[in-house]
Amino acid sequence: MAKAKNILFIMFDQLRWDYLSCYGHPHLDTPNIDRIAKMGVRFTNARIQSPLCGPSRMSTYTGRYVHSHGAAWNGYPLNVGEMTMGDHLRNMGMDAVLVGKTHMQADAEGMRRLGLEPDSLIGARVSECGFDAFERDDGLAFEGKIKGGPFLETHSADKYNAYLREKGYEGENPWHDYANSGLDDDGNVLSGWFLKNSTEPANIAEEDSETPYMTRRGIDFIEQAGDRPWCCHLSLIKPHWPYIVPAPYHDMYGPEHFIAPVRAEAEKDTDHPVVRGMIEAPVGKSFSQDHVRETVLTAYMGLIKQIDDQMGVLWAYLEESGRMEDTMIVINSDHGDYIGDHWMGEKMFFHDTSVKVPLIIYDPSPDADATRGTTCDALVEMIDLAPTFYEVAGGDATDVDHILEGESLIPILHGTAKRTKRDVSFCEYDFGHTPQAEHMGLAPDDSRMFMVATHDWKLIHFEGGFRPVLFDLRNDPNELVDLGKSPDHADTIAEMYGHLHHWALRNSQRVTVPTKQILSRRKNMGPGSGIMIGVWAPEDVPPGSVDHYVNRTAQDKRPAT
Amino acid sequence: MAKAKNILFIMFDQLRWDYLSCYGHPHLDTPNIDRIAKMGVRFTNARIQSPLCGPSRMSTYTGRYVHSHGAAWNGYPLNVGEMTMGDHLRNMGMDAVLVGKTHMQADAEGMRRLGLEPDSLIGARVSECGFDAFERDDGLAFEGKIKGGPFLETHSADKYNAYLREKGYEGENPWHDYANSGLDDDGNVLSGWFLKNSTEPANIAEEDSETPYMTRRGIDFIEQAGDRPWCCHLSLIKPHWPYIVPAPYHDMYGPEHFIAPVRAEAEKDTDHPVVRGMIEAPVGKSFSQDHVRETVLTAYMGLIKQIDDQMGVLWAYLEESGRMEDTMIVINSDHGDYIGDHWMGEKMFFHDTSVKVPLIIYDPSPDADATRGTTCDALVEMIDLAPTFYEVAGGDATDVDHILEGESLIPILHGTAKRTKRDVSFCEYDFGHTPQAEHMGLAPDDSRMFMVATHDWKLIHFEGGFRPVLFDLRNDPNELVDLGKSPDHADTIAEMYGHLHHWALRNSQRVTVPTKQILSRRKNMGPGSGIMIGVWAPEDVPPGSVDHYVNRTAQDKRPAT
Repeated sequence: MAKAKNILFIMFDQLRWDYLSCYGHPHLDTPNIDRIAKMGVRFTNARIQSPLCGPSRMSTYTGRYVHSHGAAWNGYPLNVGEMTMGDHLRNMGMDAVLVGKTHMQADAEGMRRLGLEPDSLIGARVSECGFDAFERDDGLAFEGKIKGGPFLETHSADKYNAYLREKGYEGENPWHDYANSGLDDDGNVLSGWFLKNSTEPANIAEEDSETPYMTRRGIDFIEQAGDRPWCCHLSLIKPHWPYIVPAPYHDMYGPEHFIAPVRAEAEKDTDHPVVRGMIEAPVGKSFSQDHVRETVLTAYMGLIKQIDDQMGVLWAYLEESGRMEDTMIVINSDHGDYIGDHWMGEKMFFHDTSVKVPLIIYDPSPDADATRGTTCDALVEMIDLAPTFYEVAGGDATDVDHILEGESLIPILHGTAKRTKRDVSFCEYDFGHTPQAEHMGLAPDDSRMFMVATHDWKLIHFEGGFRPVLFDLRNDPNELVDLGKSPDHADTIAEMYGHLHHWALRNSQRVTVPTKQILSRRKNMGPGSGIMIGVWAPEDVPPGSVDHYVNRTAQDKRPAT
Repeated sequence: MAKAKNILFIMFDQLRWDYLSCYGHPHLDTPNIDRIAKMGVRFTNARIQSPLCGPSRMSTYTGRYVHSHGAAWNGYPLNVGEMTMGDHLRNMGMDAVLVGKTHMQADAEGMRRLGLEPDSLIGARVSECGFDAFERDDGLAFEGKIKGGPFLETHSADKYNAYLREKGYEGENPWHDYANSGLDDDGNVLSGWFLKNSTEPANIAEEDSETPYMTRRGIDFIEQAGDRPWCCHLSLIKPHWPYIVPAPYHDMYGPEHFIAPVRAEAEKDTDHPVVRGMIEAPVGKSFSQDHVRETVLTAYMGLIKQIDDQMGVLWAYLEESGRMEDTMIVINSDHGDYIGDHWMGEKMFFHDTSVKVPLIIYDPSPDADATRGTTCDALVEMIDLAPTFYEVAGGDATDVDHILEGESLIPILHGTAKRTKRDVSFCEYDFGHTPQAEHMGLAPDDSRMFMVATHDWKLIHFEGGFRPVLFDLRNDPNELVDLGKSPDHADTIAEMYGHLHHWALRNSQRVTVPTKQILSRRKNMGPGSGIMIGVWAPEDVPPGSVDHYVNRTAQDKRPAT
């Protein structure tokens, strides 16, 4: 094997950390993904920086916290001034290419202000979160109508829809009608938007469904890539809803394969208005019903199995092409899925059900031989990927530590460190744009939550005047008991708030001046630099340093006094 | 008088708030500036957001805290993505024009990354902090040599130097040799860089010195301005050092005119390493000597008198041209000057000596008649100017409150409010680039300080593990007694830290999504929008909202099972 030249950065959407066999699922066998864990390092304490697709990805792709980049919710444009992973990699001569989903919303207003044309090379990259888009596809070709507004469609699966039509799937939206719906015996579309249809086989040939399609597009990219090093972000939409999968995956799993939900009756009694709001939200109530959960799980597990099979296809290609020898493989997810755990649905809160994600990294470099097949429980944040990739591309991550807020995982991969430097990791969620905030009458600024986690404790701070939530991760790893108002834990809560406050004051915006430049230049200030402040007379500065100010004559232009 | 159409935004550099007669100086008579106070509102509790030229101005020009924009020290480029006052004003059809100093350092790397050509209209504006530069002049045409490096020159007074040469002042740097130096009887230049020369008359005809020159340039701009509304930032370098002024101002003031320094012997005994470092720094030791202080004050006061005389020239022009009727006049400073107060020199700490500045606003609009000649002691931050100007230009400041962090002063000017909304104001200083940080072995991140001030208390928090400093502003308005380690003040200190921590978590980066848009759009989410999450079946959504997903047929593409 050789030093990693390329990076294949694979992300699945809404894949829980505990739904892979290498992470311990007793019945969902994922041998292909497991194989990469055997070849590399499997991280068991990796968390994303926001439990929602958009902000999670914006953090991962910029290597910065949400509190730093501000793209805090789905559809919030990423400020045109934010540097991305792609910018950093290109500075080191590595291409950054997208195949699939980013959930990026271009900062159209910022681009207009700075005169960036969307169809220029720079404008296209800025629009695509720093990637050269081989194929951009965010899935979810929804159709709907905002009250009192226009009919909405998203075009984010246009190329895939064109592919399907070319393959003979007729209609305006084959993504919906075939890839994400079943069919009844009368030819009626059974929309995958409805959870009851999750046990239907998707009305599509398996090879035409999204995961195989996008995997092949990833292979297409690698096949035609030239000699320059590349980072390919292969970003698949599944197992994110719609929860529906084609045969034979649709009925591979049943109740005998499901793991029990992680929840306690007492959680429902919470007095915390925000937490209660999530439990009582429609998705909370829905996924907490066993029949709903079990129907969904059938498809959820089937989708993951299909993913694993496709990873097998991909690894076979990498082997036959020689790319397995010189390509780092990174597998992760953008967040988890409650599916009824803690009486909640979806992902937008901070239990590890959602914020902990799988992270598996295979580094072909000989330096990584020492750690093959190991696990690492260091506190990892997904913003660590950016500096890690920068170092694979040949950079020194400390050259960009005034911008990137994570740390390189190369020392861990190469066995020279067992931990990351951090003692505490962070995650944030801004629910200001949600019906819950509207219902609670909360201003957007008061709808923000911050998670602070060490190995032992997890604190959740709420803006808006709500009390915090606290979990004892050592004694209550399932996070069932909220100690947020426990007087016995006041000291712990204060300590965790200390971490939050220190982080909040961090220097996140001095992105135009490298730290090393400051350290070097501050040694060289003083009279000789030409600026003298508070100096009484020439004899008060080192001889020779200001001769030019002293040994000079001029005409007499003094006004007569 | 008419509604304000234009804004004349005048800033002096390093002008202390207490060195104007309207602010109480017993001997320095500034009748022209005082006149504007009689015509408008004089603010007595206005503070800048960083006590150093560069970051103070970057905050004022962006309307954002240093912790938000990151241009934390002189020469730190302002991130290409930051919007400026000029951008906001142009959005409302008002031009933003610069005559004088900004201390802006262009983000060359960011401009390169985004393909902005410095000589394009957009690139020029981004380089000049959002202004169209009628004349950019940061003064300080220094000449020097960095140890082991090249000979340094700044070209920031090139146009002024060209003017001087045209007027017959010969030499490579007439800014230095004539405007900022005296001359002895043998024709030797007495450089104004040396404080002992501060009592010399500058070797220049008074009308050719910097303040009259730049004032005339301001008049030149206004004279040729067309019909579009304009905000002209007339930004004069004096009374910033070099402390030297031409006759007749050089000897107008003497010891009988000086106010006593504000300091106590006990301050020198501080155990606080950072504060002690400032007292013991060369500028601290220098300006604490009475002979140095008095020599400098002679020039400092003379420079301010010259400024006031020139404002008289300017007001006369505004009157004769009709611009006094339709132009808001704003007078302020970017920070103060210790000149030996608290045993310190220069400006880089948080006593009101430096962080409180003059702020006088004359609004010609009839709506402002109610407040003419009044004072206001509301907690004002200089970042309030940006939303104020935005409203003068016709905007609604709440449309941009996701970007601008201050508040409009129009309600106060129009007498509909007596206070700003804030209870606490902030200021920051990052000394990471200084010899003091090098000497103390501090990492740049640990060299940051944060000031939190209410009407009653001023807390200074230091990163790097140092204890805080606390002043009781009601009982110790001269800030002589540091209560930072007083056990009796633990509760107050905790309360002030509460303010700091809340501010540190503020939502400063969500600059691409207006608050009003969130409040409006969150009312309209739900099944009809086309995205359904957690919905079991069609009967579980409002009738008609998802008919398109239900009443549809398709071909049968299901794989044989």
